[in-house]
Amino acid sequence: MLLRVTCDLVFNIEIPTPFILMLRPRSGAQQWITRETYNIEPNLQAYEFTDFFGNLCQRIIAPIGTFSVFTQADVKISKYIDEAPGANFIDVQNLPDNVLSYLLPSRYCESDRFSELANNITYNQLPGYNQVAAIENWLRNTISYIPGSSDYAISAIEVNYKQSGVCRDLAHLGIALCRSLSIPARMVVGYLHKLDPMDMHAWFEAYVGGRWYTFDATQTGRKGGYVAVGYGLDAANVAVFNQFGPAVYPTKQVIKVEQIKN
Amino acid sequence: MLLRVTCDLVFNIEIPTPFILMLRPRSGAQQWITRETYNIEPNLQAYEFTDFFGNLCQRIIAPIGTFSVFTQADVKISKYIDEAPGANFIDVQNLPDNVLSYLLPSRYCESDRFSELANNITYNQLPGYNQVAAIENWLRNTISYIPGSSDYAISAIEVNYKQSGVCRDLAHLGIALCRSLSIPARMVVGYLHKLDPMDMHAWFEAYVGGRWYTFDATQTGRKGGYVAVGYGLDAANVAVFNQFGPAVYPTKQVIKVEQIKN
Amino acid sequence: MLLRVTCDLVFNIEIPTPFILMLRPRSGAQQWITRETYNIEPNLQAYEFTDFFGNLCQRIIAPIGTFSVFTQADVKISKYIDEAPGANFIDVQNLPDNVLSYLLPSRYCESDRFSELANNITYNQLPGYNQVAAIENWLRNTISYIPGSSDYAISAIEVNYKQSGVCRDLAHLGIALCRSLSIPARMVVGYLHKLDPMDMHAWFEAYVGGRWYTFDATQTGRKGGYVAVGYGLDAANVAVFNQFGPAVYPTKQVIKVEQIKN
Amino acid sequence: MLLRVTCDLVFNIEIPTPFILMLRPRSGAQQWITRETYNIEPNLQAYEFTDFFGNLCQRIIAPIGTFSVFTQADVKISKYIDEAPGANFIDVQNLPDNVLSYLLPSRYCESDRFSELANNITYNQLPGYNQVAAIENWLRNTISYIPGSSDYAISAIEVNYKQSGVCRDLAHLGIALCRSLSIPARMVVGYLHKLDPMDMHAWFEAYVGGRWYTFDATQTGRKGGYVAVGYGLDAANVAVFNQFGPAVYPTKQVIKVEQIKN
Repeated sequence: MLLRVTCDLVFNIEIPTPFILMLRPRSGAQQWITRETYNIEPNLQAYEFTDFFGNLCQRIIAPIGTFSVFTQADVKISKYIDEAPGANFIDVQNLPDNVLSYLLPSRYCESDRFSELANNITYNQLPGYNQVAAIENWLRNTISYIPGSSDYAISAIEVNYKQSGVCRDLAHLGIALCRSLSIPARMVVGYLHKLDPMDMHAWFEAYVGGRWYTFDATQTGRKGGYVAVGYGLDAANVAVFNQFGPAVYPTKQVIKVEQIKN
Repeated sequence: MLLRVTCDLVFNIEIPTPFILMLRPRSGAQQWITRETYNIEPNLQAYEFTDFFGNLCQRIIAPIGTFSVFTQADVKISKYIDEAPGANFIDVQNLPDNVLSYLLPSRYCESDRFSELANNITYNQLPGYNQVAAIENWLRNTISYIPGSSDYAISAIEVNYKQSGVCRDLAHLGIALCRSLSIPARMVVGYLHKLDPMDMHAWFEAYVGGRWYTFDATQTGRKGGYVAVGYGLDAANVAVFNQFGPAVYPTKQVIKVEQIKN
Repeated sequence: MLLRVTCDLVFNIEIPTPFILMLRPRSGAQQWITRETYNIEPNLQAYEFTDFFGNLCQRIIAPIGTFSVFTQADVKISKYIDEAPGANFIDVQNLPDNVLSYLLPSRYCESDRFSELANNITYNQLPGYNQVAAIENWLRNTISYIPGSSDYAISAIEVNYKQSGVCRDLAHLGIALCRSLSIPARMVVGYLHKLDPMDMHAWFEAYVGGRWYTFDATQTGRKGGYVAVGYGLDAANVAVFNQFGPAVYPTKQVIKVEQIKN
Repeated sequence: MLLRVTCDLVFNIEIPTPFILMLRPRSGAQQWITRETYNIEPNLQAYEFTDFFGNLCQRIIAPIGTFSVFTQADVKISKYIDEAPGANFIDVQNLPDNVLSYLLPSRYCESDRFSELANNITYNQLPGYNQVAAIENWLRNTISYIPGSSDYAISAIEVNYKQSGVCRDLAHLGIALCRSLSIPARMVVGYLHKLDPMDMHAWFEAYVGGRWYTFDATQTGRKGGYVAVGYGLDAANVAVFNQFGPAVYPTKQVIKVEQIKN
């Protein structure tokens, strides 16, 4: 399955503004970038680095005036998403070193406050994949998913209190619940084919049975079509753009995901 | 100045429990470990790794029964702590890559919610060191410091609401305020000579003028005597011990800091 | 200046063969990848990782039969290459940690054997950039550059003995000479506009005056047109493809560098 | 088994000389540092970092005059060394990313030149541990081990030509032979109990059956007593001290390894 994903952003900059962009998807076990376009206007000196989580980030200073970022990638992905009912819980002592950080509470995932709820939700489940699937299911049935985006991120505690949220919010609560059971969980931002309404999307991954698996409580069934752009502890680490100084919002933001021929 | 620092912990373990310990101070620009003792009883297979933040962490599974961790180090430090009034604010675009993470909000430092307060506190200050010093001073005068420890960590928002806290809480609020001004700030845990009552201590560092400087709103003046053991985004990353599974508390915890002869 | 670089490789694989490819140029201070195509046939599960030197590497197992790798990128670069006569030698104690490795001898750069020659070549030169420029000049005048490629890499000692070599060989000797003066030096492979005959190219960078500068003894003057694909200690670390098991050579290898319109 | 290892070095410094020391053993799966002393005279500003290979390195500038480094550690190790006849060869595609570097040729291990010899030596052996054991055995029977140290390191090709060498030389040839069979191999420097004559020691490790195993052709049988201090590609990366500028040799070098009571 070949998807063409597009993110077209335009900003109106009033003072020179440093940006960190995270819009370059990486080839990985589940996706291969066959073609990529990445344009920034005006032409700027940009500098790329790899962050703690393995994301490719571009540092740039947007000058006064119209600043546009256009990125498009053709990505080969599987039609189906891996599922593994029964995949086992990995004891903390056997987790790889670089997975340990995903056990700790973070800005929007106060996992230190959710162990009772997580235990109730996963009561009677086999430890591991099945616990995470139960959490995903509980989210789907309990927290109303309101597509679209919200102006500012709220944390898992607030999401649980409101009982509704955008994709990011459901992911945050899912991550907090997993971590409270000592299951590593991380945030993913990217694209999802046929997401309605179309937008950037957020979901989560949990580490069970020796690898990361994808979970998404905003969708009714497990299906393919995901293109990951960034990974992190939570929304604090995976903004597709981080901008410093007075807040700047895109005046144009077009996201597209189309299936194209191989 | 040569300090001997000791941390002696005993736990009563009821089920085999994975621990991650962060009790091995590293030699750095401001401290040199001349002698170190690190004993774990019973004798266990332990494994050491370096985390994202450069801390040496030891992974271990504590077996059922009495589990004790004894660590002692003789550390050469300076009598004085570096101060740099006037040290300048570093524009985000000029920060080193590995400092950028310390700009983002984290579990206990919701810097995304503090820009108004931070601007009020630092009104009229020269950007950089002086802003941080103003924040430290404001904390000292506004938030009551209650020595000792609390059972569970509260976040900067909660600290600001309560207007009082332990050392960790004042550090969290200081960090959140700095980051909201785009000044990188990080949590440090370690030892402080003549801390009263003696305990592990927490303070914060801010990155201005091209390097990290130490700030501590719990103390009345700037003085030496700090031994850093761990660095992180906030208390979520710098627990001297992290234990997974049912909560375990030390049945004995003795912390000592003595000045010894060179 | 916008360059379109193409590398088109075809192999005839007789037994399943693991490959590590290093053909994905990264955006950096001196180049910006505006468009990239990366196709592998047949369609394979590939996995990307970042090596010690910051290169993006793709791991793949080529199956029996025709295996082709096609990569093309449009890269914005400067028309001119930075020069800095007089840029100073950086004392070892002031070098960044991650630059220190480039001081040590490596497979093809036996810098431990070249200090006398390096001192002779750079006699009377200001320490730093001027020493490296003198080395580059000496290579240009002393070692005959034979365009094209050789079947197997020879080391700086052998290059110096033969007094001739391909681009890689001149780079190796340049690197060995720099390192013997405690100047960090690294190998770069990539593309060069108007290289004649066209092929992948290799040159070297030296760290003076606080940053890396480009040197290339195979060219008569300093000019732009370089696109870096990989960095390493020497040719042992920067093969654009590394293959394990019985040797496999491309049955087709087309390299192109064209200037295109912005 | 508890060993006390001591390394006591004295230098006579004529001009201020930058040093990188690698004398701080780390706790790992097979060794636990229970006590450590690390003194440098005169008292110097030192700075510690972790290199690519995970070694703790200390950067320092030795001033004119007598410069001494004293380091002593009590290390708990196993009495026996792990052996695993039959442990399987790991296909390159299944090796962890951070092990791949140990497949490449390096300064003193020209593995690209040894595949014929390696195939002869390991003819008829089960791929994996048994191949490495055959290499170790061949080294023991073929290359005369001359205890002591040599002034400058020679490479595997030269060792094979001379048919004799110090511990480092046998390790280099062993590493080159393993890598030529696509078995990752690395150099280790450290201490060995009852080494005669006592000195710092060097051996090698090979990655088979999913982990690193210890090999040492200088000893007649497999026995415990090893304390690792540094790991690297070869002697170029694991000098216990690296000094830059005019060569400096220790005027005193005392190495001790004693068994002490638990």
